[in-house]
Amino acid sequence: MNQSESPVWPEGAGETASPASGPIGVFDSGIGGLTVAAALRELLPAEQIFYIGDTARVPYGGKSRRTIERYSVEIAGLLLAEQAKLIVVACNTASALAVPRLKQLFNLPVQGVIDPGASAAVRSTRNGRIGVIGTRATIASRAYEQAIHDLSSPAQVFAEPCPLLVPLIEEGLFDDPITDQILHRYLDPLLGEGIDTLVLGCTHYPLLRAAIARVAGEGVTLVDSAQNCALAVDEILKNRSLAAPPRQLGNLQVALTDATEGFLRVAEEALELEIGDVLLRAVQTPA
Amino acid sequence: MNQSESPVWPEGAGETASPASGPIGVFDSGIGGLTVAAALRELLPAEQIFYIGDTARVPYGGKSRRTIERYSVEIAGLLLAEQAKLIVVACNTASALAVPRLKQLFNLPVQGVIDPGASAAVRSTRNGRIGVIGTRATIASRAYEQAIHDLSSPAQVFAEPCPLLVPLIEEGLFDDPITDQILHRYLDPLLGEGIDTLVLGCTHYPLLRAAIARVAGEGVTLVDSAQNCALAVDEILKNRSLAAPPRQLGNLQVALTDATEGFLRVAEEALELEIGDVLLRAVQTPA
Repeated sequence: MNQSESPVWPEGAGETASPASGPIGVFDSGIGGLTVAAALRELLPAEQIFYIGDTARVPYGGKSRRTIERYSVEIAGLLLAEQAKLIVVACNTASALAVPRLKQLFNLPVQGVIDPGASAAVRSTRNGRIGVIGTRATIASRAYEQAIHDLSSPAQVFAEPCPLLVPLIEEGLFDDPITDQILHRYLDPLLGEGIDTLVLGCTHYPLLRAAIARVAGEGVTLVDSAQNCALAVDEILKNRSLAAPPRQLGNLQVALTDATEGFLRVAEEALELEIGDVLLRAVQTPA
Repeated sequence: MNQSESPVWPEGAGETASPASGPIGVFDSGIGGLTVAAALRELLPAEQIFYIGDTARVPYGGKSRRTIERYSVEIAGLLLAEQAKLIVVACNTASALAVPRLKQLFNLPVQGVIDPGASAAVRSTRNGRIGVIGTRATIASRAYEQAIHDLSSPAQVFAEPCPLLVPLIEEGLFDDPITDQILHRYLDPLLGEGIDTLVLGCTHYPLLRAAIARVAGEGVTLVDSAQNCALAVDEILKNRSLAAPPRQLGNLQVALTDATEGFLRVAEEALELEIGDVLLRAVQTPA
């Protein structure tokens, strides 16, 4: 079946064949993208969501552009096989490095998390000083600087790689003096630059929102990729007539490329998500 | 060419065809195994070493047994292609979970890091109370308990997973108050059990030896997988007549499965290793 971008579809062609009947395909290097899935569930309860976490190769954040691009194409292909009507790259690293390639290869809408976060940051800042935190690969890509520049915003961007935050979050150390100390080390230089807006440029970070807010202080507005990405998806679905019928009740199906569920259960609880049986998807020829 | 285990080889068959002329193949999920390569270089300066770090899929420590086994077989296959005469699994996680499968599949000696560490710990302990630290997968495998039991030792083992140590080491935070706090959290329960010996059950950990020694205190002997593994390799080479001619001067060739060299340079400096150009090896069909 051709996953066409075209919103034109004959009336009465039947729901099973309509492009609007497929799930929203969401992927991340691991479990962090579930923050995006949770935001989608809340905003668009009628939509089916098929989520794939590439836990066999997590994390992407320290890997090279070529490898991140290759992994992203492979996982997006698995989402196509699930009849996805739209692909959400719920990973800042993959959004920063692989979205152009995905748009080039696949004939359906692809939504990353960078652009929505950049727009929200530009709308939020009052003093034109925006902080961005993320993985090494995301920060090195300068994707947020580029996206903010593309919005013709004169805002200055102060970026800081925070490589220890994902491991801390995966250990569930949301409320811990060690986490606060590490946050101070990462955020104090940005606060010293007088930022009034901070982009949480990694889909893991919303799980640490309370601690980040505490360390950043009241004067700094936090911009959450997950919520803004969900709003962007809503807009695409409406503009392209891809939205599921509102009477429908959607659900969330999760697949992983490696059967390690430890952090999945941490995220499920923290995000109050309902996740049933988890599927397994192979990403390599077995030895 | 058959990588035979047999030490029998006709005299004068020429060095290029002799099993002893191949390199020692060493692999790890990433860069940590270079501590083993460094110990091998020091103990066996005549040997060629071919090292592969699976940086495209690092870390292994939180992944499932099946995935770790699959990755290990694939990387060991790449070492065979380099004419390796012996395979060193310089990763505790892969040693704990994949060595039996590698021994079953490949017809050449396979040396992991668990058994040498377990023997050294049994020799070291005076009070029969041994601590082991490692990744989640290594600790969950109970491989050290099993290896110590197999030595008919009555020693008691107290094990603690330390998932944050690898990220801290990869950030080069060797001498940092945050690292010391995290070490206290992991080691204090073991020290409370009265251990007198602590196995560094991850090939990253020797890079943190000074901090671990400081937190553990003088009463605790640290057992380093790397050094003990090198001694075990020396023994195999001698027993099977696989040692390189002593007049030869060996070197170290490093290949990675993803071109990310950040931590490689940290390790190179910390270990005083000489690493030239780094090769790239693919582990997957490109998209």
